[in-house]
Amino acid sequence: SFIRGMKTVTLIPGDGIGPEISAAVMKIFEAAKVPIQWEERNVTAIQGPGGKWMIPPGAKESMNKTKIGLKGPLETPIAAGHPSMNLLLRKTFDLFANVRPCVSIEGYDTPYTDVNLVTIRENTEGEYSGIEHMIVDGVVQSIKLITEQASQRIAEYAFEYAKNNQRSSVTAVHKANIMRMSDGLFLRKCREAAEKHKDVKFTEMYLDTVCLNMVRDPTQFDVLVMPNLYGDILSDLCAGLIGGLGVTPSGNIGANGVAIFESVHGTAPDIAGKDLANPTALLLSAVMMLRHMGLHGQAQNIQTACFNTIQDKKVLTKDLGGSSKFSARLKSGLWLGHSKT
Amino acid sequence: SFIRGMKTVTLIPGDGIGPEISAAVMKIFEAAKVPIQWEERNVTAIQGPGGKWMIPPGAKESMNKTKIGLKGPLETPIAAGHPSMNLLLRKTFDLFANVRPCVSIEGYDTPYTDVNLVTIRENTEGEYSGIEHMIVDGVVQSIKLITEQASQRIAEYAFEYAKNNQRSSVTAVHKANIMRMSDGLFLRKCREAAEKHKDVKFTEMYLDTVCLNMVRDPTQFDVLVMPNLYGDILSDLCAGLIGGLGVTPSGNIGANGVAIFESVHGTAPDIAGKDLANPTALLLSAVMMLRHMGLHGQAQNIQTACFNTIQDKKVLTKDLGGSSKFSARLKSGLWLGHSKT
Ligand SMILES: CC(C)[C@H](C(=O)O)[C@@H](O)C(=O)O
Ligand SMILES: CC(C)[C@H](C(=O)O)[C@@H](O)C(=O)O
Repeated sequence: SFIRGMKTVTLIPGDGIGPEISAAVMKIFEAAKVPIQWEERNVTAIQGPGGKWMIPPGAKESMNKTKIGLKGPLETPIAAGHPSMNLLLRKTFDLFANVRPCVSIEGYDTPYTDVNLVTIRENTEGEYSGIEHMIVDGVVQSIKLITEQASQRIAEYAFEYAKNNQRSSVTAVHKANIMRMSDGLFLRKCREAAEKHKDVKFTEMYLDTVCLNMVRDPTQFDVLVMPNLYGDILSDLCAGLIGGLGVTPSGNIGANGVAIFESVHGTAPDIAGKDLANPTALLLSAVMMLRHMGLHGQAQNIQTACFNTIQDKKVLTKDLGGSSKFSARLKSGLWLGHSKT
Repeated sequence: SFIRGMKTVTLIPGDGIGPEISAAVMKIFEAAKVPIQWEERNVTAIQGPGGKWMIPPGAKESMNKTKIGLKGPLETPIAAGHPSMNLLLRKTFDLFANVRPCVSIEGYDTPYTDVNLVTIRENTEGEYSGIEHMIVDGVVQSIKLITEQASQRIAEYAFEYAKNNQRSSVTAVHKANIMRMSDGLFLRKCREAAEKHKDVKFTEMYLDTVCLNMVRDPTQFDVLVMPNLYGDILSDLCAGLIGGLGVTPSGNIGANGVAIFESVHGTAPDIAGKDLANPTALLLSAVMMLRHMGLHGQAQNIQTACFNTIQDKKVLTKDLGGSSKFSARLKSGLWLGHSKT
């Protein structure tokens, strides 16, 4: 089943609107003649020996082979009793960097223009350690775990990312005034990386100050690097500035080229199966994926077609203020990988 | 030194611009004939027996007597080696609730209008526990401490606050999908308080979702209640929506009426002593204080005068887009406690 010259990508369609937005991306890729074939795998929570939650072997083997995944939203009701599969994927494949570019989309009006920044989130530890204890009845501790190794790795990645993407500054986001040891360690590693990459401007800023400055003038920021939870918060905040999770791509990057690109919006069960869902976030994540794979031409074509469609305002899904079904967009040809002439 | 009918308030002028904005507030209070006399006390970091950092006895005794404090900004360079005096004050007097109303100011344009919300932050524990360990070289743990008692107290406070201030909804902000035990406990206590106060609408929302929704449409929020760090972040974010920390008041509330009201901006050493600082944040904090003390008439007069001055745009400090010195505002009479007719 492997076609010459074609690269294989693991496709995890996900829950709710996941399958239909995945289908949309596949159609667009076909129209744009992207040399990719898909290996579709479901990710549901299963328990291994000893009750340990794990990624189903089918998905795991595929990812180990292809190294690259594209993923729709996965549902994790707290009540389900299993950990978030999104998180388990990041952990299983040691996808240590969560990268979310936030760029204002022309034609989609928000209170902000010219936002153009990237949040780089440490993706493996921090407040997401999962270590919690009840000390005595009514007293609970959650452990935030910060290691030198993970901090150094993400700091180094942020500076490399800045250089490889023609970005000029990196801001380390922290609360080392409060968590002096943990955020202090993270910050120290950022400073050390900054020393090694003197061609990139380095600043450091308290998380609260970043939030305040961000809503006042987001154009002052370029690349931001931070521990796990701060990244969770800031990446959503920044997505809000440009129109929300429906138009914001995301990539989880590991070592040796392994990566999973995903839309980070919800599964939207209320509109699932109705051809109403907006595939933009997954499509732009797929564009990030193409760049990661070195397929720059196709990436650019699809991105241009996507942005032109939004700018044209002729065929828009409801969330973008239109009333088109997704298939209308495809039929209009605008999203079929052809840029406007 | 105690005048009949006058209440005494402890004034902690603070560092940098602290003394001049404190002086401004005192002048305005005098003009507005507020029946308050001030007991001025410095707060510098001192060490008690065993090297423990503490609040100077003079300030502590005054607060214990007056129960009410008004405080300018205090400087805490990380390098100083002592904890933040701001935090130590909150801890020393068990000021468990940090209350920050964020209301759009007419005439001071920001990308948002009609913001009218209040963040209520648990002020004593959480990520601010100060407990950190180095497990092995390069591996650090910070402890987030959540107790049933403190969670219940702040949840209860939030609902009481909503009722006493004619607000109709409380949103609990959490990450109980990640920190299931600690944020789970916090959330449970909020739900229990909601059960007791059925006349107030209750919703719960993930912190990341709150950030995203906040920058898209802050008017959907009313009262928000949350653990310590989330409050630090969200209160600054919300301040950003209405123009920044220079115009945002803050109150730290304890049991039995004890409270300290403070401006939460920095000490601005670059403009200190130049009559350029904007006293609005401290003045509006003082207005909160008057309401807390039951002096509603004076509170309203001063608030009206303050907002009118900003709306008139005749005498504004530089941070608000003007070029007036503060004394110009006083001379213009606008800030002297008289509302516009
Ligand atoms: C789904 C959820 C567990 C996740 C997180 O908290 O990291 C999400 O908010 C994200 O940002 O990817
Ligand atoms: C001064 C600093 C320690 C403090 C905090 O982090 O709580 C400040 O940001 C605040 O919000 O009052």
